[in-house]
This record gives sequence, C-alpha cells and structure tokens, in this order.
Amino acid sequence: MRDLTSLGLKTVGGRVLVLDQRRLPDIEEWLDGTAPAALVEHIRRLSVRGAPLIGVSAALGVAAHAERGASRTQLEQACASLRAARPTAVNLAWAMDQMRGVLDAGGGVGELVKRAEAIFDQDAEFCEQMANHGAALIAPGEGILTHCNTGGLVTAGIGTALGVIRRAHELGRNVHVFVDETRPLLQGARLTTWELGRLGIPHTLITDGMAASVLARGKVQRVLVGADRIARNGDFANKVGTYALAIVACHHGVPFHPVAPWSTVDLSCASGRDIPIEERAASEVRGYSGMRWAPSDVDVFNPAFDVTPVALIESLVLDRGVFSRSALAQGLSGVAG
Amino acid sequence: MRDLTSLGLKTVGGRVLVLDQRRLPDIEEWLDGTAPAALVEHIRRLSVRGAPLIGVSAALGVAAHAERGASRTQLEQACASLRAARPTAVNLAWAMDQMRGVLDAGGGVGELVKRAEAIFDQDAEFCEQMANHGAALIAPGEGILTHCNTGGLVTAGIGTALGVIRRAHELGRNVHVFVDETRPLLQGARLTTWELGRLGIPHTLITDGMAASVLARGKVQRVLVGADRIARNGDFANKVGTYALAIVACHHGVPFHPVAPWSTVDLSCASGRDIPIEERAASEVRGYSGMRWAPSDVDVFNPAFDVTPVALIESLVLDRGVFSRSALAQGLSGVAG
Repeated sequence: MRDLTSLGLKTVGGRVLVLDQRRLPDIEEWLDGTAPAALVEHIRRLSVRGAPLIGVSAALGVAAHAERGASRTQLEQACASLRAARPTAVNLAWAMDQMRGVLDAGGGVGELVKRAEAIFDQDAEFCEQMANHGAALIAPGEGILTHCNTGGLVTAGIGTALGVIRRAHELGRNVHVFVDETRPLLQGARLTTWELGRLGIPHTLITDGMAASVLARGKVQRVLVGADRIARNGDFANKVGTYALAIVACHHGVPFHPVAPWSTVDLSCASGRDIPIEERAASEVRGYSGMRWAPSDVDVFNPAFDVTPVALIESLVLDRGVFSRSALAQGLSGVAG
Repeated sequence: MRDLTSLGLKTVGGRVLVLDQRRLPDIEEWLDGTAPAALVEHIRRLSVRGAPLIGVSAALGVAAHAERGASRTQLEQACASLRAARPTAVNLAWAMDQMRGVLDAGGGVGELVKRAEAIFDQDAEFCEQMANHGAALIAPGEGILTHCNTGGLVTAGIGTALGVIRRAHELGRNVHVFVDETRPLLQGARLTTWELGRLGIPHTLITDGMAASVLARGKVQRVLVGADRIARNGDFANKVGTYALAIVACHHGVPFHPVAPWSTVDLSCASGRDIPIEERAASEVRGYSGMRWAPSDVDVFNPAFDVTPVALIESLVLDRGVFSRSALAQGLSGVAG
C-alpha cells in the first residue's frame, strides 16, 4: 500500500494510523488501526469519526489486513465487523460493499489495495469538487454557521461543509464562521475550532442553543452542515442538533445546505424514515469525558443523529453538483447515472 | 426577621443563607449571604440564580443589613449594588425598587423587614397561583419539555414552569418531563433533574440539540419555560436556547408557554428589543467548571439570555391568570391594574 496522508488518517509502511479525535485539540496522538478489531474499536469510540473518514479508514484497514496475509474468510469477517461498527453513516457500508465486491470478484491483495487507495484518492477529489461547487454559492462577507465537524479530519481531503468554507476563504470571500459546540461530544468546540484555527479562518464558538440568537441578530447568511446518510428524496441524517438548526434557519429565511459526497446517498432509503438512528450511551449526556454533572442514575435519551426533511433544504451540495430543493423533488435516483 | 425556608434560600436567626447551586446535584452546601457584598458575589457567580429568587434573596439581604444596624446611606448602596448584580432579570430591579421605596418613605428596620418578608411570602403564593392556572392546561399523559431550571430552587415556593409541572403531577396527570441540559451552565442537567428526582416525577435528560428530535417523534405535547423579563407586548427574555425551542415548538404545532410571576413583567419595555441581554465570560463556553475542551484562545459569543417574540407563544401563564397570544396582542398594560 502507498503511504497516504490526510489530517486525521495516514498509512505508513502498510500500517493504518488514525489521529485520536477524542483527545483533540490539546493532544495530537496517532493510534494504530491496522488490525481490524482495533479499528472497529477506534470507530465505535469515535477516535476516528465522520461519515466519509470511517468509510475510507475501514477500506484501508481491510487492505492492510490483506497485505498481512489474512485469509478470504478473515477478510470477509473484517468487512462485516467494520460495516457494523456504526449504523447511521452509510459511507462505511458503501466502502465495505466496495471491498467485498473486489473479494467476491476473486480479487487478490493487489486489487484490494488498489481499491482502498482509490477510495482514499476519490474521497479527496470529491472534497475538491464539493468545495468548488459550494464556494460558488457564497457571497463576500457572509457569516456562515456550521454544526459538528466536517473538515479535513473527517475526509481524505479538505472536508465537506468545512471544505466549502475553506475554499470560500481561499477565494477571499472574507467569511466568518459561527461554530456550534455540538453536544454531547463537542466536535464543534474541540475539532472545528482547531481546524479553523490552523487555517486562519475567523470564527466564533457558541453553544448549540445560541445559534438562533446569532441568526436573530442577522450575523448569519448561510448554514452549511455535513450529512451521514441522504435518502432518495433528499431527507438526510446528520449529527443531532442539525434538524433544529434547519428549522431555525428556515424560520429566519437563511439558506441551509447539507454538503456530502455521493457515497453518502443511500438510494435504498426512500425517505428519512428509513434511516436507522444510532443511540449511544447515557454517560455521554450525563457529563463529558469522565466528568459527570447530572445525577448518576438520571434517565437519558441520546440519539447521535437526527433527520432533516428535504423541505428545509435550500440546496444539497454534492461532488456531482448543487441540487436545489425543487430538483430534489424529482428524487436522487436520476443523479446516480 | 422571621426564619424563612425555601429549597434554595433561608433565613436563620437573621442570617441569609443560599444553597450553592453551582455545586448541585452532588454537594448541598449553604453559603452565607447576609452581607450585601457577599450576596452580590453569590448572585454574579450564579450560586444563587433564577429570576424570582435573586429578587427575593436581595430583599432579604437588605433587610438583614438593616437589622444589623446599616445606615440609610449603606442601605441605599446595598440596594444599588444588588440591583446591578445582573442586568436581564427584572425581578431583581423590582425587588430593590420595593425596598428603596420603603426607605424613601422613611421606613425603619421594622418596615424593611416586613417588606422583605412579604416579598418572600408573596413569591411563594404567586407560585401556587401559577401552578394552579398552568396545571389546568395540561391533559393526562402529556410529555412536557422544559429548559433551564424553574423550580423550587428559583423561587420562594414551588417554582414557575416546574411548579406547574409539579402541580400537574400532584393532580395525577401522569406527565413525563424532557429536560434540556441547558448549556453552558447545565442548569437542566444538574438542577432540574435533581428537583424532579426529589419529587418522584418521571423525566429524561437530553442535550439542547435533541429537543427537536424528541418533538419530531411525537413525545412532547407542551413546552413550559420560565422568563427573566417580559416586555409590555408579550415578548420575553429567558435562558439562552429558549428562542430556538419556541421556533421548533411552533414548527411542530406544539403549544409553548412561558410561566412567570407578575414581578417579571416590565411595562417600561415596549418589546423584546428593549430588554438588555447579559453577556458572560468566554470560559463558560470553552468548557465547564474548570474543565476546558475548546482551544484556550478561541473567540466566544456568550449571551446568557435570548428573546422570544410573542408570536411564538400559545399563552403566558402569570399568577394573575393565563393570557393567550391574542389577549397579549392588547399588551400587558391592561393587566397591571
């Protein structure tokens, strides 16, 4: 396997390394995810996270496993266990189906490595295309609000929604980013601020409940978010809190755009109702990272994602282009070809 | 001064004691707030918080100061410094104006103590009236969503919005409460869960960004919140995050009600635009209670409150009765008499 490098994922001499996103921004530690069982654990614990990146890292993990002499049965098992590591983001299932397809066609180590490298390379290229399509929407001086983390950390390239923001910044659009902290796991507060700081893009951190205030004050002209799975009708799942943001943006007449690569589209889901929503541990809501502030036995509801209906979307930014709400009324099946 | 007792405030032998709400739910520690300077600090640091309670505690603080021999000038200074401790909740200004009125009318220690005791007693009585008015709105089996903390901790009685919920529970309405954690200071996660647990009222903790998901799943039939200042036209300020919740409730056709005593109404504010919004320290958003997770130098916007326009309100529950949105269109001036 070639040595590959992105902000949160790299391969070095055939080993797969992931940046531990749970410890950012203060500690930058790379974890070994070469063994599929280790990678599954890193994905479950969100050391490696973000819809595109978990797909790319899983593909590289399967390829590394093959290079180290895993049998066909072991590779099938690796594909299955990685595929099941998290349920909502479809990119992971998509990447594992790709690798499984190579196996099923009788492909050997060379073909598996080639496919995984292609998934990595394509993901980076898709980011460029999304960034160019999305940046064209942005007027000079816009305030842009975003949720969760959708940058270099979650893709092989410059990111999805945050990639669009980066490109707009590079084009001199003079944007200012408002960053939702994104409870419970604080990906906005920890990761998006860290990425924006590295890139020198002006930004302000707020709590999730403050977004509506910022919109009411006229400081935001556009909302850009990622997506973990997009249904055929344009409904999409993303990090919990996205749906509220879409309602609030719509209420203020502020355009709202999900940004994602085509691997995020799941044509087998007719609408958002068909997207499985992962529920995670109560401890994530009772506190943060070992610190608990709620009563230890309090009942908790912790859906990691929510579903935003297409009716609240101004347009969907894909690597294949920008699709307005009215274009989405035709469904995404026609875009597949 | 009589010995007075509420969940978060008491007087013992002329001393004013406040329960340190920053340390709940795990530690129950009473702080001495007899000296006005100490009480100002407790209010600023949110050891004692909640619009009605900061007014009541400040009144008792002035009375205790008088009992300990403070001069008229010292009492005027105490009224002024307490009045300025926090800017948004008008109950504090209202209570200080009451005490100042006694002083200006030449009232002595006896009159000041009597007025402060009356403010305490009336606040508890207002809670009963709000609870009875509000509980009458609630149908059996309702899911009720609430934000921040509005219970026994923030009043001399059973609370505002949480008092309504408690009364509905006592009347056998079989309610289930969804509690927004309420970042940044987590009053919902720490305090509302603690109160509901003591009262045996079924409840589930969520992050602020999950409220829309809970509504979309049909689990919530009503949203009840407190208020820190209500303008003449029915717009009101409350803990940041309330406005988003009102938009989301309106989007789902779920009735949304602020609950407050008359002392929260500020007829001198024509609309929400006239309500001053307190901005607090960046450290509150960069982490929580000494733990920081965001970059240490990240720019932060931290408004402690937001303004919800009357158009999003189903009805306003006051001690004086329930006022529908259409009744509020006449303004609150007519209710004053």
